[in-house]
Amino acid sequence: MKILAIDSSGQVASVALAEDDTLIAEYTVDYKKTHSQTLLPMLDEIKKMTELDLSSVDVIAISNGPGSFTGLRIGSASAKGLGLALNKPLIEVSTIEALAYNLYGMNEAICPIMDARRDQVYTGVFTFNKTGQSPYSYEFITLVEPVPLDISELISKLNDMGRDVIFTGDGIDVYKEVIAKELKVPYSYAAFTGNRQKAGSVALLAMAKASKGEFVSADDSAPVYLRLSQAERERLEKDK
Amino acid sequence: MKILAIDSSGQVASVALAEDDTLIAEYTVDYKKTHSQTLLPMLDEIKKMTELDLSSVDVIAISNGPGSFTGLRIGSASAKGLGLALNKPLIEVSTIEALAYNLYGMNEAICPIMDARRDQVYTGVFTFNKTGQSPYSYEFITLVEPVPLDISELISKLNDMGRDVIFTGDGIDVYKEVIAKELKVPYSYAAFTGNRQKAGSVALLAMAKASKGEFVSADDSAPVYLRLSQAERERLEKDK
Repeated sequence: MKILAIDSSGQVASVALAEDDTLIAEYTVDYKKTHSQTLLPMLDEIKKMTELDLSSVDVIAISNGPGSFTGLRIGSASAKGLGLALNKPLIEVSTIEALAYNLYGMNEAICPIMDARRDQVYTGVFTFNKTGQSPYSYEFITLVEPVPLDISELISKLNDMGRDVIFTGDGIDVYKEVIAKELKVPYSYAAFTGNRQKAGSVALLAMAKASKGEFVSADDSAPVYLRLSQAERERLEKDK
Repeated sequence: MKILAIDSSGQVASVALAEDDTLIAEYTVDYKKTHSQTLLPMLDEIKKMTELDLSSVDVIAISNGPGSFTGLRIGSASAKGLGLALNKPLIEVSTIEALAYNLYGMNEAICPIMDARRDQVYTGVFTFNKTGQSPYSYEFITLVEPVPLDISELISKLNDMGRDVIFTGDGIDVYKEVIAKELKVPYSYAAFTGNRQKAGSVALLAMAKASKGEFVSADDSAPVYLRLSQAERERLEKDK
């Protein structure tokens, strides 16, 4: 199973190519450029460097939200375009779950936080449990489904849970002070090798979904925003 | 502190750029091309994509062994060349420790194994301990220093240790069956997001070394092979 994975849900642009147990290539850039300037050139670069015949790809994996509305649309358009042109299915992966997969195997409560403005984060809480005989594997456990939450509401949930927490995602920089003030359980922040979106993690999660047959057609794939856009919100308020 | 990190100690070629808490770019390719074809073009690609002025880099971090003799020489030559041209110091990082850093924060016994042929692996055993107040950090603990070992000797050490083990590195594919047969403690294999060299991990380890002032001059830097090359070995045997 050869998977081409894309993540452009935040400032990071990331492309990866994985086959079975091997991450053939991963290219990630966290830099203030629009994804329309970076994503496809990065894919083209990987394609050349690994002499990839795109028609050999079995599935396109896309981190389909939540996240930056523009970023998600560029990622989704790219994945749908590739799927349609190559006649391959897509696998949609939650941005929040893919961020948790950066910390694959850790037994703390893994809490991705993406800044969603207005004191909110896109978040969720997960952990990994050891399972089976040696070589044992890790079962991915969802403690809180991906959801937009007020940061204080999230912290209160984490205090109730009473487990050690490790945070990842771009919300860390924004909410560091609130966390230090309100969180009562021991916590840490992911190192920079695991604190932003990585297409390798998208590919790893997509491998698990592929084994469960969770494919969608390029036609049907669409971003999951989890919230109304600013324009929609303002329109609704005006209409009231 | 801006660090440019390089790893070409195995089949993987990997380049990363990190500044303080941010991994600005990471580009990793695991593909059968010689590093002389990949490493500097990959660096050039990152340089263009992030509009990097090379003179703004503070340190060149190099994964300086053990590993493939040719790979290490190409990496070392590239890092020394960059250091000399830019007049910047180098930080040398053990390939084995950098592999362990792929599993940053995990509390199992982390055991990188790189295939060293002739039933040997380049290996070491490490773990991370939580330390300090929230946000707590992770202390990197060395249980066995980087060393070439017979695979059976390594397994016997791990059995004596009695801890859960997680393996990473290209030795997994080669020694899977021996491990399944001889290892008595629970164990697992790192997922593909963490089972090969990554320059991001080299950069993360180099950040820790930078804070302790562990710099070397480009002139003085050299690979650490940990073993004689095949040619040297054969010469010694012939001379006996």
